[in-house]
Amino acid sequence: MKIVVDAMGGDYAPVETVKGAVDAAREFGIEVVLVGDETKINEELAQNGVGNLPVSVIHAPEVIEMGEPPAVALRKKKNSSIVVGARLVKEGAGDALVSAGNTGAAMGSALLGFGRIKGIHRPAIASVIPTVKGKTLILDVGANAECTPQNLMQFAVMGGIYSNKILGVNKPKVGLLNIGEEETKGNPIYLEAYRLIKESELNFIGNIEGRDITAGVADVVVCDGFVGNVVLKFGEGLARDLMAMIKEELKKNIFVKIGAAIIFSQATGLKKKIDYSEYGGAPLLGINGVCIICHGSSQAKAIKNAIRVAKECVEINVVKSIKESIGKNAIGDDTIASG
Amino acid sequence: MKIVVDAMGGDYAPVETVKGAVDAAREFGIEVVLVGDETKINEELAQNGVGNLPVSVIHAPEVIEMGEPPAVALRKKKNSSIVVGARLVKEGAGDALVSAGNTGAAMGSALLGFGRIKGIHRPAIASVIPTVKGKTLILDVGANAECTPQNLMQFAVMGGIYSNKILGVNKPKVGLLNIGEEETKGNPIYLEAYRLIKESELNFIGNIEGRDITAGVADVVVCDGFVGNVVLKFGEGLARDLMAMIKEELKKNIFVKIGAAIIFSQATGLKKKIDYSEYGGAPLLGINGVCIICHGSSQAKAIKNAIRVAKECVEINVVKSIKESIGKNAIGDDTIASG
Repeated sequence: MKIVVDAMGGDYAPVETVKGAVDAAREFGIEVVLVGDETKINEELAQNGVGNLPVSVIHAPEVIEMGEPPAVALRKKKNSSIVVGARLVKEGAGDALVSAGNTGAAMGSALLGFGRIKGIHRPAIASVIPTVKGKTLILDVGANAECTPQNLMQFAVMGGIYSNKILGVNKPKVGLLNIGEEETKGNPIYLEAYRLIKESELNFIGNIEGRDITAGVADVVVCDGFVGNVVLKFGEGLARDLMAMIKEELKKNIFVKIGAAIIFSQATGLKKKIDYSEYGGAPLLGINGVCIICHGSSQAKAIKNAIRVAKECVEINVVKSIKESIGKNAIGDDTIASG
Repeated sequence: MKIVVDAMGGDYAPVETVKGAVDAAREFGIEVVLVGDETKINEELAQNGVGNLPVSVIHAPEVIEMGEPPAVALRKKKNSSIVVGARLVKEGAGDALVSAGNTGAAMGSALLGFGRIKGIHRPAIASVIPTVKGKTLILDVGANAECTPQNLMQFAVMGGIYSNKILGVNKPKVGLLNIGEEETKGNPIYLEAYRLIKESELNFIGNIEGRDITAGVADVVVCDGFVGNVVLKFGEGLARDLMAMIKEELKKNIFVKIGAAIIFSQATGLKKKIDYSEYGGAPLLGINGVCIICHGSSQAKAIKNAIRVAKECVEINVVKSIKESIGKNAIGDDTIASG
């Protein structure tokens, strides 16, 4: 198994991408292929003391920047790290692709390289969010800034499969993220999506609201990529800022400060749970291959965990599972249905 | 000054609405008019020992339920608490309206009762979110499940005025909530909204992402009502669940548990800061009157604080400020411009 990593993608690339790849090779024994500027990557590899870890480099002279319009960039930069990476996987030189670069470009490269699963209109990025009950899968979190009701319906199907096959949830509860619980809430797209998902064989629990996400009301939260992206990033920011506010508050009293130091040293389980980078990247579901998208600000730990998620997706063959379920009238089979 | 409260609106009405109103009269000395089922309201008033506080009751026999389609309900239930409440304010029997009921019905009643400010296409609900730097105003949080670029532009103008006049921010920084910082990110509606706001005289800082909200990057966060509603409720849920997870984690060790009890007793400032009900309701900006919308699950404290916010809006005459600014080419005047 070889995981191909876009070494140049992301706000902290190639420093953090290379470090994350080396960590994945060291900690998980995963074979990693780094794609990008050979000189820069080798400099970083030297910094990280790669030794005889299973890390190799493929040169790609171009980089697609975060702000570039993806369609134009993909046409112009055929030798960019993300395009070359996707090509390597397509040609069998790797089993999965990981990128923290321009999301549109990563998605476009994966689409061009692997193609869509037959019957899927639009792929979606699915991300795991910690909840009081464990974790929930939310999709789409950024692949589609606009969605049709049919797209949302397919996200529900794919999310159900991923939740069942990869996260091990039996008959996952699927919720549609909306501005009210009632069937009449939302805009025309969500009203129609509600109807479509309700008619399916999925274990649909109806509309859920923002406050239900971390309560763990649903195992799969379905929304368009605009809403999902804002929610995901808002959650990260709020968790980070809330912890900062708590620490600030605790500093105000010297006795409390000492107690707090003890407590924070104990609360590693919680820290790990609410640390989004533990969950690494997010799979791009609906393409005919494995591609893990990390957000732009990923640091080494997020990259390392994304590589781990990529490996798991290949091992469990989530693509095959989606193909099989979508083949059955794009509704899903009994393992994800409520009946 | 008289604040009219829809006593029957909300998941916990009339118990919590009446309690909140009595608390507002007691704590802030505000004169409150409760509208709804006279018998039920009087029962609750008796429970709360209203004494000679300035609280009166106006009977309204009907209630618009949370799940009812607003347009139909407003036509059919002309004697509902929210419709009667709006009428009272329109006729001068009250200065502002507060409701935790069906958001669409509350908005519709206020619109029918007070009308829009000339030049405003759609009103927006604006809510305050605590940040590490203080607080930020986000709008729309639920009035419009769909928006045009022009709507978003007007939300930016109104939010700028509210931030300046009511929250006291000089030249408020206005950010457009999007799925990336780059000008090219988002869907066609947000791309065009970006262009419109950029061309205005507002102190526009460009696109901001979900993670920038609680970091306090912007003083005014502009988005459509679907995204804003989901974000607001997600934030509430996450803050609630994160605190629960922290408390759970701290219970695991008896020594830590004792320390934690001390700390939590000390951290009242923080608790107050992250408690959304402290901020009460959210003003419906763009209508020709004062209407404060509370979310459905509001309890007494949220209602009490919403009544306080209503009083402040009337006193400072935010409607007049918006009228004046919108009159100047719908861009806003120098006090909210960046120049």
